[in-house]
Amino acid sequence: MGKEGGVVALQTKIETMFNPRSVAIIGASRTIGKWGFTFTLHLIRGGYRGAIYPINPAGGEIMGRTVYRNLREIPGPVDLAFILLPPEKVVGAITECGSLGISACVVITAGFAELGKQGKALEADIVAAARKANVAMIGPNCAGIISSEPASLYCMMQPVFPPSGHIAVVSQSGNIAGSMQFLFWKQDIGVSRCVSVGNQALVKTEDILEYLIDDDLSRVVVAYIEGVDDGDRFMDVARRLTRKKPLIVIKGGTSDRGVSAARSHTGAIAGSDAVFDAMCRQCGIIRVADVEDLIDTAVAFLSQPIPRGNRVGIVANGGGWAVLTADACTEAGLDVAPLPEETLLRLDERLPAWWNRQNPVDMVAGMSRGAFFKAVEIVAQCDQIDAIIALGFGYGQANVAAIASAPDRDTLEYVSYIEATRHSDLRGMQFLLDIIATHKKPVLLASEYIVGADQDRNEAVLELRRRNVLIYPSSRRPAQVLARLVRYGRYRQKTAS
Amino acid sequence: MGKEGGVVALQTKIETMFNPRSVAIIGASRTIGKWGFTFTLHLIRGGYRGAIYPINPAGGEIMGRTVYRNLREIPGPVDLAFILLPPEKVVGAITECGSLGISACVVITAGFAELGKQGKALEADIVAAARKANVAMIGPNCAGIISSEPASLYCMMQPVFPPSGHIAVVSQSGNIAGSMQFLFWKQDIGVSRCVSVGNQALVKTEDILEYLIDDDLSRVVVAYIEGVDDGDRFMDVARRLTRKKPLIVIKGGTSDRGVSAARSHTGAIAGSDAVFDAMCRQCGIIRVADVEDLIDTAVAFLSQPIPRGNRVGIVANGGGWAVLTADACTEAGLDVAPLPEETLLRLDERLPAWWNRQNPVDMVAGMSRGAFFKAVEIVAQCDQIDAIIALGFGYGQANVAAIASAPDRDTLEYVSYIEATRHSDLRGMQFLLDIIATHKKPVLLASEYIVGADQDRNEAVLELRRRNVLIYPSSRRPAQVLARLVRYGRYRQKTAS
Repeated sequence: MGKEGGVVALQTKIETMFNPRSVAIIGASRTIGKWGFTFTLHLIRGGYRGAIYPINPAGGEIMGRTVYRNLREIPGPVDLAFILLPPEKVVGAITECGSLGISACVVITAGFAELGKQGKALEADIVAAARKANVAMIGPNCAGIISSEPASLYCMMQPVFPPSGHIAVVSQSGNIAGSMQFLFWKQDIGVSRCVSVGNQALVKTEDILEYLIDDDLSRVVVAYIEGVDDGDRFMDVARRLTRKKPLIVIKGGTSDRGVSAARSHTGAIAGSDAVFDAMCRQCGIIRVADVEDLIDTAVAFLSQPIPRGNRVGIVANGGGWAVLTADACTEAGLDVAPLPEETLLRLDERLPAWWNRQNPVDMVAGMSRGAFFKAVEIVAQCDQIDAIIALGFGYGQANVAAIASAPDRDTLEYVSYIEATRHSDLRGMQFLLDIIATHKKPVLLASEYIVGADQDRNEAVLELRRRNVLIYPSSRRPAQVLARLVRYGRYRQKTAS
Repeated sequence: MGKEGGVVALQTKIETMFNPRSVAIIGASRTIGKWGFTFTLHLIRGGYRGAIYPINPAGGEIMGRTVYRNLREIPGPVDLAFILLPPEKVVGAITECGSLGISACVVITAGFAELGKQGKALEADIVAAARKANVAMIGPNCAGIISSEPASLYCMMQPVFPPSGHIAVVSQSGNIAGSMQFLFWKQDIGVSRCVSVGNQALVKTEDILEYLIDDDLSRVVVAYIEGVDDGDRFMDVARRLTRKKPLIVIKGGTSDRGVSAARSHTGAIAGSDAVFDAMCRQCGIIRVADVEDLIDTAVAFLSQPIPRGNRVGIVANGGGWAVLTADACTEAGLDVAPLPEETLLRLDERLPAWWNRQNPVDMVAGMSRGAFFKAVEIVAQCDQIDAIIALGFGYGQANVAAIASAPDRDTLEYVSYIEATRHSDLRGMQFLLDIIATHKKPVLLASEYIVGADQDRNEAVLELRRRNVLIYPSSRRPAQVLARLVRYGRYRQKTAS
């Protein structure tokens, strides 16, 4: 939909797609294992707030819902249709959608351009039908969409129901889109929109990005991209987007074998990796290597201020983590900057006489937890430091968890011990959040104690997670994330001037 | 302990240290927060099978155990002592250990060479005392040790109680040693020995590595190293070790700031990174970047055969993961090799007509789970493929977890759905384990469904974990791990001939 008027009209349809009053599932099924079953199940399970109309010529009921034999039988207006029919029946369904004024459809069905010549012809037919019918078509060969607010529309191939939040996803892979949702969900990270664009025969990645520029619910945009058809349009949209919010991208197809796999996947022609990389740099796009990386980074953008520079202060509860984090920061292009004498003197007041008097600040194992948090604050107050990596959060309750199964845990000593450590993490959490808010500097956390947080029920770790503050389980991950916050900050400074 | 006789004597003492009949805690305490409390607590909590003798001049009881006023009051023989006294009292304690025939001690106390000149003098004194008393001394400034079988000796600063198993740890950082134990424990990964060597004033990293060469319980050795004092000895020991089992190393101090932090940490002079890297290559040491990386790799060595070459077959349940894994394999130096026509024909029989007919094998979402496992087997049978990365294990029960909270989950459809998916993962697990055993090729698994496995109680995922088969949550991690298996295999082939 190239023309200016077309773009506006398309954006209106995308708006309706994300906020539909009602949804039809064309090809709904009672047969377990069929997509027509799965999509209906997920739409219901996700708590969609509008009307749900399963469509199947057999009629009857599915999961307690009336099944309509066709679209025309539906008693109310329909805004969005999911199409789960065999490839040869898709053209007819789209045409019917158009005739009933349905403005958007999501074609899950595969078997189009990704299969080569014959599939391409069929795909051209459905595009022509969608244009004629004035229907915004997502797909084909896609995994569905999510739109959390206000619709509570969770209609994807995978059983994924992340909470409502502020990360928007556009993906040229259905299983990567699903993976992201799964990983967000498991870590309590909120999602605003998710679109698996499939073969993007009509609605393109760029159209969704365009919508997200002004979608206030979406504060960080992440994308999985195999290929870009129209580089100029992509760069134009990306530039306008990154001026308002970060865009974090995984590029699939950086190797010959990857490119070849991408071709058979969505029919995408993965362009030169160097060209894509240059585009990213010019448009302020943050490029990451994989999904773990992407989530680490996206979440930090939601909860952390953008640092003014690359000078990082490291506060550690033990030497090894301090050493590895200094190495990782250096490798990521951050400056583990010397601390001025004034800051060293203030730390002297809090730390034992033999502390190492440098950055990284090594707390020396065994210091009270209060000193750790205080040291983070003192370093955050230093105007020659732009950001902090604090290592070692979460020890208090880990101790509790460790002795929970001790044989004689009810003796006085155990009970006192638990009482002494239980609340230290929660107090520390609030202190750290206050430092971030007061000093407007990022404070990234890393500790092995995050692992198994669900098991341990560490209230502080889980609460931080709900506030989009992850505790990274390695020294490299926060260093990489911080370097990306710095890079985006510099891009924004440059483009603002 | 440089001389030949001394080395033998020292090894005998280290053997006793890992299998002591009794342990004294010199400086045990009832005061919560003191190390004398924590170490006693952990030793008891870890279920140590020998006698425990807390020592404190105040006498009385700690956690129901009699406290002895001094070592001489102890009624039986003592094999190992932990020393938790202030620095100036350590010399006396070591001398007393010697006079009572205690062959090994672990000095937790800090405040020695890591503090500079004065600390160095004090450290020289305790070394002299230990030599004179004929006591093998670990530390000072260390976090303790673990020896799982037969002693069940868990005596570290951190509350870490991993199951008994086959990974041995030597660490020049106490908090990295503790982090590793915590991460092993949380993932059900078994540990044989763990030594935090601290300032290694007497017993060196190399002495522990020497012991581990012939320690049959230890099948994989991992180490965190900041500096190597005697490069020739280190290389000699490493060469002899890697001829029998893999040695995986994190090197701390690769940057100026990291080196500086290391100096104040354990007093280690971190050598040139390039020199260390060359040493690793010459000795078949597998070098990794951080703790996550190290665990990924160590566990694979326990459960996977060493591949004969670098030709990897990728089997994926969807395009995006296939693309990213092909990229990651290529970057890691693996060969995503073409499949011969014979293998393609065999896959044709199992996959839909439109499958992509290449490596990576993209299953195309929606295929039955059985076809996925069968495709892994067919690729494993191909003699032009040395190893497999299989993407997408664990979907069955993830579906169950997703609908567990559905409002009308008791309706017939839900119940049938759960029944249909519940057992597919367990069947698949057994099938994959059989493929590894039959074809003697590694099959590495990656899927986002591992995340939150504890929550989901995916029996298959948990059972695989207990068998040291991790499911990596990204495409890069299995590619990196596989590349290391390949590299070690080549080293072993080269040194065998």
